Amino acid sequence: MNTFSDNIFCPEHRMYGNASKKTYTRGCIHPIEVGMRTLSLTKTYTCRGIDFSSIPLYDTSGPYSDPAVTINPEKGLNPLRDSWKFNSENTEPVSERDNETTAARVPLRAKAGRAVTQLAYARKGVITPEMEYVAIRENQQLEEWIATFPSGGKTAEPFTAEFVRQEVAAGRAIIPANINHPELEPMIIGRSFRVKINANIGNSAMGSSIEEEVEKAVWACRWGADTVMDLSTGTNIHQTREWILRNSPVPIGTVPMYQALEKAGGIAENLTWELYRDTLVEQAEQGVDYFTIHAGILQEHLPAADRRMTGIVSRGGAIMAKWCKTNNRENFLYTHFDEICEIMRSYDIAISLGDALRPGCIADANDEAQFGELKVLGELTLQAWKHNVQVMIEGPGHVPLNLVEENMRKQLELCHGAPFYTLGPLTTDIAAGYDHVNSAIGGTLIAAYGCSMLCYVTPKEHLGLPDKNDVREGVVVHKVAAHAADIAKGNPVAWLQDELMSRARYAFAWEDQFNLSIDPVKARTLYAESRAASGQTDG
Amino acid sequence: MNTFSDNIFCPEHRMYGNASKKTYTRGCIHPIEVGMRTLSLTKTYTCRGIDFSSIPLYDTSGPYSDPAVTINPEKGLNPLRDSWKFNSENTEPVSERDNETTAARVPLRAKAGRAVTQLAYARKGVITPEMEYVAIRENQQLEEWIATFPSGGKTAEPFTAEFVRQEVAAGRAIIPANINHPELEPMIIGRSFRVKINANIGNSAMGSSIEEEVEKAVWACRWGADTVMDLSTGTNIHQTREWILRNSPVPIGTVPMYQALEKAGGIAENLTWELYRDTLVEQAEQGVDYFTIHAGILQEHLPAADRRMTGIVSRGGAIMAKWCKTNNRENFLYTHFDEICEIMRSYDIAISLGDALRPGCIADANDEAQFGELKVLGELTLQAWKHNVQVMIEGPGHVPLNLVEENMRKQLELCHGAPFYTLGPLTTDIAAGYDHVNSAIGGTLIAAYGCSMLCYVTPKEHLGLPDKNDVREGVVVHKVAAHAADIAKGNPVAWLQDELMSRARYAFAWEDQFNLSIDPVKARTLYAESRAASGQTDG
Repeated sequence: MNTFSDNIFCPEHRMYGNASKKTYTRGCIHPIEVGMRTLSLTKTYTCRGIDFSSIPLYDTSGPYSDPAVTINPEKGLNPLRDSWKFNSENTEPVSERDNETTAARVPLRAKAGRAVTQLAYARKGVITPEMEYVAIRENQQLEEWIATFPSGGKTAEPFTAEFVRQEVAAGRAIIPANINHPELEPMIIGRSFRVKINANIGNSAMGSSIEEEVEKAVWACRWGADTVMDLSTGTNIHQTREWILRNSPVPIGTVPMYQALEKAGGIAENLTWELYRDTLVEQAEQGVDYFTIHAGILQEHLPAADRRMTGIVSRGGAIMAKWCKTNNRENFLYTHFDEICEIMRSYDIAISLGDALRPGCIADANDEAQFGELKVLGELTLQAWKHNVQVMIEGPGHVPLNLVEENMRKQLELCHGAPFYTLGPLTTDIAAGYDHVNSAIGGTLIAAYGCSMLCYVTPKEHLGLPDKNDVREGVVVHKVAAHAADIAKGNPVAWLQDELMSRARYAFAWEDQFNLSIDPVKARTLYAESRAASGQTDG
Repeated sequence: MNTFSDNIFCPEHRMYGNASKKTYTRGCIHPIEVGMRTLSLTKTYTCRGIDFSSIPLYDTSGPYSDPAVTINPEKGLNPLRDSWKFNSENTEPVSERDNETTAARVPLRAKAGRAVTQLAYARKGVITPEMEYVAIRENQQLEEWIATFPSGGKTAEPFTAEFVRQEVAAGRAIIPANINHPELEPMIIGRSFRVKINANIGNSAMGSSIEEEVEKAVWACRWGADTVMDLSTGTNIHQTREWILRNSPVPIGTVPMYQALEKAGGIAENLTWELYRDTLVEQAEQGVDYFTIHAGILQEHLPAADRRMTGIVSRGGAIMAKWCKTNNRENFLYTHFDEICEIMRSYDIAISLGDALRPGCIADANDEAQFGELKVLGELTLQAWKHNVQVMIEGPGHVPLNLVEENMRKQLELCHGAPFYTLGPLTTDIAAGYDHVNSAIGGTLIAAYGCSMLCYVTPKEHLGLPDKNDVREGVVVHKVAAHAADIAKGNPVAWLQDELMSRARYAFAWEDQFNLSIDPVKARTLYAESRAASGQTDG
């Protein structure tokens, strides 16, 4: 029996009190209901001739922001995707269970010869429930507003499910959604859509409890994380992940290498393909939605990495480099990449091709090692696409601002348009304690150039493990970055929120200003703090 | 008798304990001693063949970081520029004192027909002590390192006093240094030099005490503010400024309009040129180093401003717009601009041409009103230069990231290369509570494009007045922005600090990592917090 604190229920929120209510939009094609958080405004604002007395907001917090839903972490969230009954004829229960500790639900996988990936459906011209879901979600019920918004000499068009299908089919966007994660509310990662952010959580060997990590995952979603990566190590790694998945409305990513290494007794050179493969299957059956796989670092890259100022800073990269060197063999993730893809395809897990050679300091940015690996990631992208597996590409890291654009350009060229997912980039090495800001700076720029998802960085980067407050700060500043990039890219929905805020500001409508902020709780708190300090009260 | 808290002495610091010591570099031409904070490292790091076991850091905190100096705020800082005895033959004591409350020292002004501005000297080919000071200061005693650093196909060159003179003579850089602010340690604002940041302080009518504002000014310098603007309003405005000036090692800027409005009973339409002129002289004699003057907003711009979503958000701009409309006359700051320049010239006060029409929301960015005013600011720049008055140009504001570059390009074109000094820009309107981060994002980009100084924004922007913690957060995140821009611009001195940090990181040299951080106190605190949370101790 686990003991969760009240935090798991986001009590202060569900979310943001009377001004908000949870609303649902039905699909036309599939029996889906897309949740949003609709914000009531205290005034009516007229924008481009349309009156707004409320606005539906994109909501990453899932059922947690719906006061009508009872949250029971012991039971997990409602498996809403099961009710869509879309995949049933192409899937079957796994016959041999790889791990006894997996929960009550019997995991599914694709029947032999059947493809259940979003990419496979998209290529066949099939619009899945997930595709329709993300189209509705990205439009935020603002189709009328979108159609008034100027875009490239004409007016913008709302997203359609068919457009989503095309983007997925072309490999320009992915919908990470393991068939074994039915609690997931689908989201899309691709540069035609809203810029997304990921929050990393995870205990360390000495660190926090399962409850704390589940609460961190929920907490991250509640502040706006679009996906969560569980980077747990140490004992209870399987069980922690199980709890996180069952209670997570957002896609969960992992780096399976971390668990494989635990199984190899923590000794990199003892890793084997078999150990790694079993780990993939174990996590696939639990429902992990995307895997970071460091398949692009090859023996030929290692001399260039040795010449660097800070070598290899990616943990997965360092593990693989050590394995290759000690065993004098090529990276087994590369040599077994086809088999990896076959596993991914059976559950529709997206591959996040890891940048094992991301620069760890600005002096190493855009170097031979980094771009050498990126070229291999481009080749692996084509290989994954042959297997109908969805792919995104991970990117740096530490990059001076003037070299950020080259990163985006090379990624598009070498990786055939697959979505880019970057950590920062950090634009200086000396911002310890403020690396979340440092990352938001580089992140905004690369997202404005076309990066699809930003991995958050917290104030504890380079210093230690984030606590809950660090998670919040990390999430919110990267929401600022992602939103600023959406503004720069001319996303009509993003512009409406800014316009309403500006009109509220001009009208001194404080409640609306707080509620339209990316972090309403912070805005309200700082306002009250300032009023109190100057002896004013609201009484 | 004022009562200062221990904060005024920066006790925790003076600064950062045993690893730091204050060092001084003598001038070759003038009897100057340029203070730096030299950091000892726990290891010796070899960078481009040079061994570093210490590094001198640019230090904005002046005597406050020198434990050998006794700080007595009642007495003020040592008037070090007086000891340089450079201007004495061109200046004379003012005969009629405009304000009884001015402190013991008799203010100086230029003798009739004499020019005492840095611009006048520079144009005559004279290297002033201030010019030599900033050249030494920008090099940080790192001439040997600078000469190894690649720059445009050859190696970089250290700054020379002659180069500083040329930049000032061309109007591309300014050294704000009122002859009545002898406590000042000269600094330079120009795009060939290190990017600078400004911190705004100032009480409101109901707000804080003189002591608190002086402490805020010192506090801002100690975290890295290169200049401080005192935006105080209400009573005690003269006295507060006097205390700040006498205790400030950095240039102080003001918006004289705020005090003139107080004198006009708070009623904009009652302002007169005479009232304003007297205020200029009063503040000039106190030693204010630069004045924000909203002389570029004209009657012809007002219709365009009326068409905006959020109108005029600059306080000075709103005051002048109201004055023009009510009196149906042209902006008196524009019509009396020659007389303003004559006053500025007599004390060597730099003009910061205010952007009264800066956009207050992203929808208003780069519009007709903003660029219409910018064109006038360019004309006024030429006019000020005719009077040998130093000029910089203030810039926005709220600007989407994709329009930031145009701001810099237009400013360079229209304002003849005068330094640009921007507030942010903020890249979205909905980051209330995180607008310091929002501002750092836009600020980094515009500084990388060539903006010379960033005005900080604190977490309280749009919400209330900053307290001391907000001042620190605002200063530090803008130091991150300014430094990231220096990195992007290839400043060798900035790169060295990053390289040392990266080598310290690779060597797990924690003390060096903390001390090389922009905010060592924060880095150390977060590290300790994380260690404590995971049950580790350093014992």
